[in-house]
Amino acid sequence: MTRHTAPRREAPASAKREQMLERALDVFVANGYVGTTTDQLAAAASVSKQTLYKTFGDKQGVFAALIHFACDRVEDPFAPLVERMRTVPSAQDGVGLLAVQLAGAILTPRIQRLRRLVIAEATRFPDLAQVYWERGFAQTIGSVARCLAILDERGLLAVPDPTLAAHHLAGMLLWIPGNRAMFAPTAPMSAADVDPAVAAGSAAFLRAYRPSPRLLRSRRLRH
Amino acid sequence: MTRHTAPRREAPASAKREQMLERALDVFVANGYVGTTTDQLAAAASVSKQTLYKTFGDKQGVFAALIHFACDRVEDPFAPLVERMRTVPSAQDGVGLLAVQLAGAILTPRIQRLRRLVIAEATRFPDLAQVYWERGFAQTIGSVARCLAILDERGLLAVPDPTLAAHHLAGMLLWIPGNRAMFAPTAPMSAADVDPAVAAGSAAFLRAYRPSPRLLRSRRLRH
Repeated sequence: MTRHTAPRREAPASAKREQMLERALDVFVANGYVGTTTDQLAAAASVSKQTLYKTFGDKQGVFAALIHFACDRVEDPFAPLVERMRTVPSAQDGVGLLAVQLAGAILTPRIQRLRRLVIAEATRFPDLAQVYWERGFAQTIGSVARCLAILDERGLLAVPDPTLAAHHLAGMLLWIPGNRAMFAPTAPMSAADVDPAVAAGSAAFLRAYRPSPRLLRSRRLRH
Repeated sequence: MTRHTAPRREAPASAKREQMLERALDVFVANGYVGTTTDQLAAAASVSKQTLYKTFGDKQGVFAALIHFACDRVEDPFAPLVERMRTVPSAQDGVGLLAVQLAGAILTPRIQRLRRLVIAEATRFPDLAQVYWERGFAQTIGSVARCLAILDERGLLAVPDPTLAAHHLAGMLLWIPGNRAMFAPTAPMSAADVDPAVAAGSAAFLRAYRPSPRLLRSRRLRH
């Protein structure tokens, strides 16, 4: 806003843009897409309607930018875990790391609000819901699957279909707290709520995907 | 409408009411709560605004009636399964019955639309979301848990915490198709999409909760 002297204004413009999108998320979640006006979006971001239109085009432009911006920030937390899977001493340790990361990624209030908004408007904007699905959801599952494939290669788990197994891990870990977050948003969850579900889900996953004793023996003979 | 001669008009009134609520679900899903007007609700149900107000009070009254009405219709499909669990020949058969029922109950388009609406408006109407959670969701899980407890008593499964296990079964079965339904509503799912996920989820559940050989032996000795 105040850096007109700078020849490149990408950084501040991008910070301003990010701030506008953060505020827009609040407004859209509170009112739904149809119930939201550009007046509200501009007021929430403390910018003029002119600035809003110049940056995003129109209300639909703000909504689209919001979804794309959120999806651009996904996956990073899982990237370092792929390498960790090569050295973790046991399946318990590997799955434990994945479980903590999965629960953290999906159960943060900001992501829950985004998820609520995308679900609410998916029939109106199927293309944007598809973006969220592919980049925000399927990509996370893909990272978890890569990690599980490494644990399988190392003989620590028996995972013939890593993507399916990633869904099962996510399903067992997140079904309880994820649904609770969607249906009881005014009862914020603490670690005391989430941790037991994550521990129990990890344990059930380890039982479902443990290598058979015969497979373990044959791997020991080969290596 | 045409039965003014009947002294009790409960039945037709209730059919009319049900029809109004069915149409209201469409309108609320399409526009969100804030974006919906009572004019739209009346027009969609082909009734006057006066009839709408007389039946439900106001827009919030329609919304509340819609959620309660939907929750009143839940659970029945699971009640007959409890008895079936006492006679099914194997854990595979029992879990297979539960899996088909769970997938059917949660993946019907009508329930998906209701779920989308409740998630969209849960921050605005936490009490109604809580009703849906307790009667539409927790009650289903409770029925599944009762079934799993019977399979445990019979020694066909090892289920120390039936409610947790019910969440794990639902999570593994429904995480993939349930999320796909929420995020890709324009790509309707066929049995060909859902069946493999249900079969794979059931199989993983059976592996996670199968009795240990030692438990099986001790039960055989006792019976």
